[in-house]
Amino acid sequence: MSLELRRRIFEQLDQLVLIDPHTHINPHAAASRTLADILGYHYYTELAHSAGMPRQEIEEPGLDPREKVWRLVGYLPALRNTAQYSWLVEICQTFFGLDDADLTPDNWEAVYDRAQQQMAAVGWEAEVLRRSRLEAVFLTNEFDDPLEGFDTRRYIPCLRTDDLVFHLAKEEVRRRLERASGLEVGDARSLRRALACLFEHFKRKGARACAISLPPDFTPRPVSPARANTALAALRSEGPAAAATHRQAIGYYVFWTLAEMCDLFRLPFDLMIGVNRNVYAAGVHQGRDLFDSRVSLLQYQELFNQFPRVRFPISVLASVTNQELTSYAWIFPNVIPHGHWWYSNTPTFIEYDLAARLEAVPHNKQIGYYSDMYKLEFALPKFAMYKRILAKVLAERFVIDRGWSETRAVELGRQILRTNVETVFRWGEDLSQELPDLARVEPLSPQGPLGPIPAAVALAAEEAATPLLGESERLERLPEEPPREFVLPVPPEATADEEGVEPASPAPASSAGEGGPPQSLQLEEAASAPTEGEQRASESLRQTERWPPWPDTPSR
Amino acid sequence: MSLELRRRIFEQLDQLVLIDPHTHINPHAAASRTLADILGYHYYTELAHSAGMPRQEIEEPGLDPREKVWRLVGYLPALRNTAQYSWLVEICQTFFGLDDADLTPDNWEAVYDRAQQQMAAVGWEAEVLRRSRLEAVFLTNEFDDPLEGFDTRRYIPCLRTDDLVFHLAKEEVRRRLERASGLEVGDARSLRRALACLFEHFKRKGARACAISLPPDFTPRPVSPARANTALAALRSEGPAAAATHRQAIGYYVFWTLAEMCDLFRLPFDLMIGVNRNVYAAGVHQGRDLFDSRVSLLQYQELFNQFPRVRFPISVLASVTNQELTSYAWIFPNVIPHGHWWYSNTPTFIEYDLAARLEAVPHNKQIGYYSDMYKLEFALPKFAMYKRILAKVLAERFVIDRGWSETRAVELGRQILRTNVETVFRWGEDLSQELPDLARVEPLSPQGPLGPIPAAVALAAEEAATPLLGESERLERLPEEPPREFVLPVPPEATADEEGVEPASPAPASSAGEGGPPQSLQLEEAASAPTEGEQRASESLRQTERWPPWPDTPSR
Amino acid sequence: MSLELRRRIFEQLDQLVLIDPHTHINPHAAASRTLADILGYHYYTELAHSAGMPRQEIEEPGLDPREKVWRLVGYLPALRNTAQYSWLVEICQTFFGLDDADLTPDNWEAVYDRAQQQMAAVGWEAEVLRRSRLEAVFLTNEFDDPLEGFDTRRYIPCLRTDDLVFHLAKEEVRRRLERASGLEVGDARSLRRALACLFEHFKRKGARACAISLPPDFTPRPVSPARANTALAALRSEGPAAAATHRQAIGYYVFWTLAEMCDLFRLPFDLMIGVNRNVYAAGVHQGRDLFDSRVSLLQYQELFNQFPRVRFPISVLASVTNQELTSYAWIFPNVIPHGHWWYSNTPTFIEYDLAARLEAVPHNKQIGYYSDMYKLEFALPKFAMYKRILAKVLAERFVIDRGWSETRAVELGRQILRTNVETVFRWGEDLSQELPDLARVEPLSPQGPLGPIPAAVALAAEEAATPLLGESERLERLPEEPPREFVLPVPPEATADEEGVEPASPAPASSAGEGGPPQSLQLEEAASAPTEGEQRASESLRQTERWPPWPDTPSR
Repeated sequence: MSLELRRRIFEQLDQLVLIDPHTHINPHAAASRTLADILGYHYYTELAHSAGMPRQEIEEPGLDPREKVWRLVGYLPALRNTAQYSWLVEICQTFFGLDDADLTPDNWEAVYDRAQQQMAAVGWEAEVLRRSRLEAVFLTNEFDDPLEGFDTRRYIPCLRTDDLVFHLAKEEVRRRLERASGLEVGDARSLRRALACLFEHFKRKGARACAISLPPDFTPRPVSPARANTALAALRSEGPAAAATHRQAIGYYVFWTLAEMCDLFRLPFDLMIGVNRNVYAAGVHQGRDLFDSRVSLLQYQELFNQFPRVRFPISVLASVTNQELTSYAWIFPNVIPHGHWWYSNTPTFIEYDLAARLEAVPHNKQIGYYSDMYKLEFALPKFAMYKRILAKVLAERFVIDRGWSETRAVELGRQILRTNVETVFRWGEDLSQELPDLARVEPLSPQGPLGPIPAAVALAAEEAATPLLGESERLERLPEEPPREFVLPVPPEATADEEGVEPASPAPASSAGEGGPPQSLQLEEAASAPTEGEQRASESLRQTERWPPWPDTPSR
Repeated sequence: MSLELRRRIFEQLDQLVLIDPHTHINPHAAASRTLADILGYHYYTELAHSAGMPRQEIEEPGLDPREKVWRLVGYLPALRNTAQYSWLVEICQTFFGLDDADLTPDNWEAVYDRAQQQMAAVGWEAEVLRRSRLEAVFLTNEFDDPLEGFDTRRYIPCLRTDDLVFHLAKEEVRRRLERASGLEVGDARSLRRALACLFEHFKRKGARACAISLPPDFTPRPVSPARANTALAALRSEGPAAAATHRQAIGYYVFWTLAEMCDLFRLPFDLMIGVNRNVYAAGVHQGRDLFDSRVSLLQYQELFNQFPRVRFPISVLASVTNQELTSYAWIFPNVIPHGHWWYSNTPTFIEYDLAARLEAVPHNKQIGYYSDMYKLEFALPKFAMYKRILAKVLAERFVIDRGWSETRAVELGRQILRTNVETVFRWGEDLSQELPDLARVEPLSPQGPLGPIPAAVALAAEEAATPLLGESERLERLPEEPPREFVLPVPPEATADEEGVEPASPAPASSAGEGGPPQSLQLEEAASAPTEGEQRASESLRQTERWPPWPDTPSR
Repeated sequence: MSLELRRRIFEQLDQLVLIDPHTHINPHAAASRTLADILGYHYYTELAHSAGMPRQEIEEPGLDPREKVWRLVGYLPALRNTAQYSWLVEICQTFFGLDDADLTPDNWEAVYDRAQQQMAAVGWEAEVLRRSRLEAVFLTNEFDDPLEGFDTRRYIPCLRTDDLVFHLAKEEVRRRLERASGLEVGDARSLRRALACLFEHFKRKGARACAISLPPDFTPRPVSPARANTALAALRSEGPAAAATHRQAIGYYVFWTLAEMCDLFRLPFDLMIGVNRNVYAAGVHQGRDLFDSRVSLLQYQELFNQFPRVRFPISVLASVTNQELTSYAWIFPNVIPHGHWWYSNTPTFIEYDLAARLEAVPHNKQIGYYSDMYKLEFALPKFAMYKRILAKVLAERFVIDRGWSETRAVELGRQILRTNVETVFRWGEDLSQELPDLARVEPLSPQGPLGPIPAAVALAAEEAATPLLGESERLERLPEEPPREFVLPVPPEATADEEGVEPASPAPASSAGEGGPPQSLQLEEAASAPTEGEQRASESLRQTERWPPWPDTPSR
């Protein structure tokens, strides 16, 4: 009974047209050109290498695509058990006429040829999207991407910020930032302005998210402009050889500023938490990163508290972090579980993690899945894997264990597969003209001490093993608006077209006092409440702030 | 077959009359008065808030109960997937005549009215207990609770000690302690005496446990009276502004003393491990706490070793700690897995954690479940959820996977649902007169240096980042009795009524030497063995020490 | 359907003749002599003790075997739920004619007598092996085991090295090392030479692995000979009272040298990661160890990178580390998941951990199971437990969820149960004469500063809380060969008998630069490439390096 039930639920979920909320698609070459683009995906190269294939065989310069596929096919037998291999077979069966259960030395050439033929056809890209039932695909764009030459309604820009946070010590990255923003980045103030320029550019081009991947020990915190200036000066003179404290200080400064920009520009901030880069330095391209599962979302406590209006779709790399993600999403309105990432994107982990989320996180704030793909052909098998597991969990844990109707189970599936992508990323709204008051982009007080910090203090900072120096200087920061709660209003008699507006209410003083800045700072802040103009600008922003209500929310 | 089997096992488990070994029931208002008491449970307010409901809508001062329910009902659709919501529906269906699958804007008023009517009826409280098949309910009492005005055979007092360990820096807490004990708490000695008074009071009133919840970084250790005196002096003069080392030192001193009192007064010490308080400061009441899953029971190594006679029913907040709990319970006689707590109290985590425990921990020392409820109506759906999962695990992993008979599976369920609650908390024994020799309550050597520690040493303590200063002073502590093993005798020819007595055997010297106090201390201890009087007092205590044998333990 | 399918798969897996790749069998007394050898297994004594049995009852000196069994049988009822108890019953049913479902006070004596009779029979040992379908059994040998007097083709020596890494401060251990090697161990150089002697001895006697168990905080790193000399001098003069930094430094020096020897002698290095010894000091023999689940394989990053030719079969103690093991094995060619160890060796953890591995790690590099047994009779029920779970996972997750044929599922089971044990440990090859060029065993530069380190520096080392002092001295280390990748060639037209040879390729410079030693060291290394002689020796070694290809790897 259960298997039949699973099948029926899957078939209904499989009819949905989806938006893929996180991929690495290149919109100028979204689909594959040969089977080597499929088999060259790092999942196959790294697994083949792990199973015994020398890296040199894979990454030989100038390697012909057909030769590359031939070499990799020789190692596929060792991967037949993996979930990743099952995606490959499903692609070949669905798109390229493979009839067998495996891609083998005997049949690979026919598949290669058929694939090449299909991929060369006009409309292959559209065909893949259509057969995959994909309406749109989120991208991962370098911060200096011009975002030109592709349809930004189908391929949704997303501002990826890893380089800004982790590699600003590299002159090349600072140069790219200066070119992209048209500003010289000489101090914390201009750095902030430059970041605002990126957001404005991306927003105008239709971006719907800002994103970053973070190592396990990352613990975001505010850094004062003065501390940032000192760090930036060190980076400009010493580059990547600058003291780790300076590189960390600027990283935290940029990260915190990005969160402020997400708030101002009203973009969700996708956090992908837990990756250590280059752990296996001799590995194949993109097959070198691993993780340390000892990470806690408690590290993000201050961030979540300070940015109640920013939505944080969060991916965790280790399944053992999934309960924390589940619990934090159950408590924090702005924490949104987001898909099943990378090393947790295999059936056993998905099944367990998904079941835990479905039982404890309100269903209007969890995003089921994204493909993370580099080539369009992968959406179909990856989403199919997810939908089969989702159907299994819905059948076993909701229909059977809890007595739900099939209809209700399918509706829950639709909610996390499609509806929440729409609401979290505000699908259907034109956001390109929704830009903040410039005065709020640059709130640095002109009279604040912006450094450089005296040499002795800077030295102490260099010697300290911590980037917390800036904390003693928080008083120099300009007063922020009091944080507001993140509201998902359910307005009276609302319809999809004429929803009311519900202003966010300031958090009460009692709550701001706990876990927030020290007492003296609060007084300082209280003394400089937003001006009337700022208040208006903010409220004007709120005019469009809304979160589509849950479909069957009762009118009141 | 499996579903039918699960159903049959559930139905047998569902017939059991239970004792709920941990709740937050107020015995003066145990049942709800309106549906707002049900919907006001933090699980609903925090989930509704997480799903988009502003805190102000929930916590508006003077809010009418009916209005509160009406507001919350509007957000329930977003929670329909959660396990917590299923408890609500089961309550409304079982007790208040709800026929629908959901509580909705269309039907809530009828349910509200029906509930109000039922709750106002004479005997509603007894009715709920009867229909929930609950014989007794453990409470969570503030340490200064007079424990008057309720039936302590139905509502079992439990001494909750969080304030004493974590908030003794607050003058109000010290005042409460002084009022409750009738003693001035000026130094470590009087603090210890005051704690003993609380235990005596609670024990006389029928208390069967001492309990505390602990943050992930808590690592209990002994603190010398001299160090405690120094810390207490700082707390008395500076209050919560006292250095963290002093606050920690007094916390560890109090905690260790509580464990000593549990030993002397023969009370289990319920440890609820892993909660960080106030992580989301702007959250709703009781909806602000979260956790860091990076915690290990290794932090409790010294505690478990030093108190072999104290039973520690242990709850862990994170499911990833469950394997440690399982393994520590498999090795340590005094470690007892206790229910499924809070963020781990959802079906997927329960199922996995329960299965792991059932396979590896002797069944006479695991307590299946407690409701943690604030209002009586919640016992029924929470225990029902647990029993369904228990039936599933017994059916799938014992009857099917291991070929057990249904009878045997049900018996295992009964053991962890009911029998072990009886044995661990010594149900059926009158403990109110079982009080220790006063000389043993206060073992501080009069000639020991009890501080205050000289200013320079105190300063060093303040500056140190660790409360371990006291460790160098352990020599000043009065000799303790050698620890004894925790025995669960299986006496020859025992029957339930005429069990023999088996004195605990002192641990052999070789074991005391490992992991125990340093060599010099041992000599010191050896030099001051218990006097004959102490020995008698101790043996008199042992007269009633027993652990009901496993029902089918063979006579020998 | 699923149960029948599981049964069929199990029955096919159960026909396989296996090699048990990790046990604690004493080859001079491999089988039990009385039932007390079975019931005296620490799983039963520690569980009985945890359930209430005083340690003294179990460990009374001179206790008669029959009396011991009688005492333990009285506590068995409390363990009936455990997986460990099920092994006992299966042993008694299979080998000793037990007809009942339990071993009880009523039937134990008959079982005891029958067991005694069987065990006394000539050929009992061979009979157990035959009925357990075991072809060979890996041992755990003390480093000074003469390895004489038993059939090393059936009982495979394995060099266990815990004492060398963790207890070299004990004079007795150093003495044993000197006796076993015939060398005086006075400095780092002679210590290295002595370790090489052990490897040569073991290799000549047919050893196929080196093994060690490691605590959670172990983080292997290279230590310079100079630092090791200083540490060794301290150990020789102070013994176990030497500063922790010295004990750690020598531990890391020995460990790293063992890895180098595994490389030179081409032995897999079994790492059993995560055990804390003596946590419950008053526990029964072998029932005192537990763990801290906060451990990461990231701690082994440098080891895995520096020894690409060494195969590391890895066991983790905590199931929460299993995803890291899975992911590291998916990325690192030399990381091999190895069985289900100790506290993770119960069905729920095995099922979850196994499923995760089967979905993500190439199937030619995971070893399903080992028994860890002390007496031969335990292989049968332990492997049977594992095979039942394997059959369940294959049935549910491969045949049902992924549409695999039964044949294919069984083949995957065979691969991880048998085939990979053969390939990882090079079954069928005579390794006893495969010894490295002696010049490569002792690569210490005669002109390198080998200590002792000046007193002031040594003092600083003693005071430091870290063993990292040696890191600043890495320049003194002799140049190593550039690391090579671990290759599992799939040669063209290979057959089982006439496989080609594929030399390992040196890692490209770009990869060696990341995560590797500092720049200056690299220059040093580049300046002293292997001599022609060394090169030849190395290539001669490679002549026999091969990894049998996956059976159905296509010829190319």
